[in-house]
Amino acid sequence: MYKIIIDAMGGDNAPKAIIDGTVAALHEYEDIFVYLVGKEEVIREHLAGQNYDKERVEIVDAREEIEMAEPPVAAVRTKKDSSMVVGMRMATEGKGDIFITAGSTGAAVAGGTLVIRRAPGVLRPALAPILPSAGGGVLLIDCGANVDCKPAYLQQFAVMGSIYMRLIMGIENPRVGLINNGAEEEKGNALTKEAYQLLKQADINFVGNAEGRDILSGDFDVVVADGFTGNVLMKFMEGCASFLFAEIKEAMMSTTRTKIGALLAKPAFTDLKKKLDYTEYGGSLLLGTKAGLIKSHGSSNAKAIVSAIRQGREFAQMGVVAKIQEELAKLNEKTVQAE
Amino acid sequence: MYKIIIDAMGGDNAPKAIIDGTVAALHEYEDIFVYLVGKEEVIREHLAGQNYDKERVEIVDAREEIEMAEPPVAAVRTKKDSSMVVGMRMATEGKGDIFITAGSTGAAVAGGTLVIRRAPGVLRPALAPILPSAGGGVLLIDCGANVDCKPAYLQQFAVMGSIYMRLIMGIENPRVGLINNGAEEEKGNALTKEAYQLLKQADINFVGNAEGRDILSGDFDVVVADGFTGNVLMKFMEGCASFLFAEIKEAMMSTTRTKIGALLAKPAFTDLKKKLDYTEYGGSLLLGTKAGLIKSHGSSNAKAIVSAIRQGREFAQMGVVAKIQEELAKLNEKTVQAE
Repeated sequence: MYKIIIDAMGGDNAPKAIIDGTVAALHEYEDIFVYLVGKEEVIREHLAGQNYDKERVEIVDAREEIEMAEPPVAAVRTKKDSSMVVGMRMATEGKGDIFITAGSTGAAVAGGTLVIRRAPGVLRPALAPILPSAGGGVLLIDCGANVDCKPAYLQQFAVMGSIYMRLIMGIENPRVGLINNGAEEEKGNALTKEAYQLLKQADINFVGNAEGRDILSGDFDVVVADGFTGNVLMKFMEGCASFLFAEIKEAMMSTTRTKIGALLAKPAFTDLKKKLDYTEYGGSLLLGTKAGLIKSHGSSNAKAIVSAIRQGREFAQMGVVAKIQEELAKLNEKTVQAE
Repeated sequence: MYKIIIDAMGGDNAPKAIIDGTVAALHEYEDIFVYLVGKEEVIREHLAGQNYDKERVEIVDAREEIEMAEPPVAAVRTKKDSSMVVGMRMATEGKGDIFITAGSTGAAVAGGTLVIRRAPGVLRPALAPILPSAGGGVLLIDCGANVDCKPAYLQQFAVMGSIYMRLIMGIENPRVGLINNGAEEEKGNALTKEAYQLLKQADINFVGNAEGRDILSGDFDVVVADGFTGNVLMKFMEGCASFLFAEIKEAMMSTTRTKIGALLAKPAFTDLKKKLDYTEYGGSLLLGTKAGLIKSHGSSNAKAIVSAIRQGREFAQMGVVAKIQEELAKLNEKTVQAE
């Protein structure tokens, strides 16, 4: 049984979407056991009348909630009885293999470090979403957990990202790129120039710098950045897509001919939006903590929660946490010997 | 007469596109005088048989060329007789109001600093392209001239960008945003947290942080970033657009219905691509040097060169160089008083 701890109260559509998604996932996977953390009476009310295997669900009462706008660190420190903190504490105590939340990203990251805590040998846990790309998806690590980074953090991000793409996405030898302002080795700011050398030394398939225009080209399975750059890029992708779709819509409404074209082509756009939809790609991982943590999108619907649970189950099944510790121990060993 | 110095040998389509564009611009504007810098016999050959006002053109012989792949600083230092360095030296000596090149961006930026040099009071010149946005265009400054920045550089970038958008784009009170990983004032890395406070103090219309998803929203006329982040973002926009157009194409080819739709909607896409086309937006400015410098896209066609010349003419007409010095002197004065 894979034990999955779920924040029933986090996200724009909680608790309904979270509980509906959990029920659907229980049908899909017979080898999962879920803890639903949140206000017991609210969870019971949403579960009432639904058909699911009651032997594989346990409700854990938590009376507080962390709001999206709250300062993350303070919220995690003071709201000890929130669904997020209670769930994370359970993960820390080994009661479950993974914790899933659609709540505040800031609180998830802060809690990952303060409550679940770093795994031994990890300098900094990192947040990693999979972006759609011409190659079917590229892991961007870090995308916001660490806004100020040292070169050694980026080296570890590269190793953790590689492990994830190998174990969960089944990519044999993930191609790792360093996000940089030029393709050549000598390009970069103070951080990336040094990180480049460290990435060359790590036991990964480092294929060089990834310029902005190449990130989605399909040439990379993992792209590494400091959390500031990663965060700005991830959100910029959303901004570019919104802008382009709005421009396309406007251009198509300009003549009768193109309007008819738009009407006929509409199913293609619907399919495409579905393909690019975050619900298909699951949540962002927080890699490098003592227990797994998945941060599902704030506006997750039931389908997105099923995806996150699927991802969490695989995360547990493949032993990602242990594998990261093992590989980083090797890397640290190598670094010590080199010094 | 506005005196415009043009690198006739720079860019993928040089010298033909450069010279054809120059001839077209001479017809469009009767108040410009152009220096075409490069191999004299090659320029003469391309001008032969063309109809233009010979009184307003002077050919300046330069025997060397800087290649796209050359290390920029070394190229600028050693190739003293290249079209780029000769043209820049003329700008420095006050022989022209602005220098335009479609050659290597790295060499243009290096030459801007080493040959044209910083204007008094400027900490670092910055490269600034106008990106298409929902608001009709947003100036991104810096996009690669300074990969490692101090907060005070970003403050100056904000002031220089504001001046440009006001004088050249006619925006009365340009809204300036700081590219950051969150909307709230306290968000940011070490650099942006400090820069936020400096932007508040500057005599500009600073409207707060610009998250990645808001850069193209139309809420900002100028967005400020260190050159590393700006460079990665600018190229990522290109990458996102390529990726999305390829995905749309694929989605539209999936059924007969959507194929017909695509055929009918094609003019809309052609119009849109034209609208998003860099040739319509002119070149990137290098702001903060003693003479103006426009870096036109490497694959500039004649039309893009006409745009760059138009932009250069306005740059000279509005006295952007003098205005930047004046406003930065005020800012420096204020900073000294505050200290």
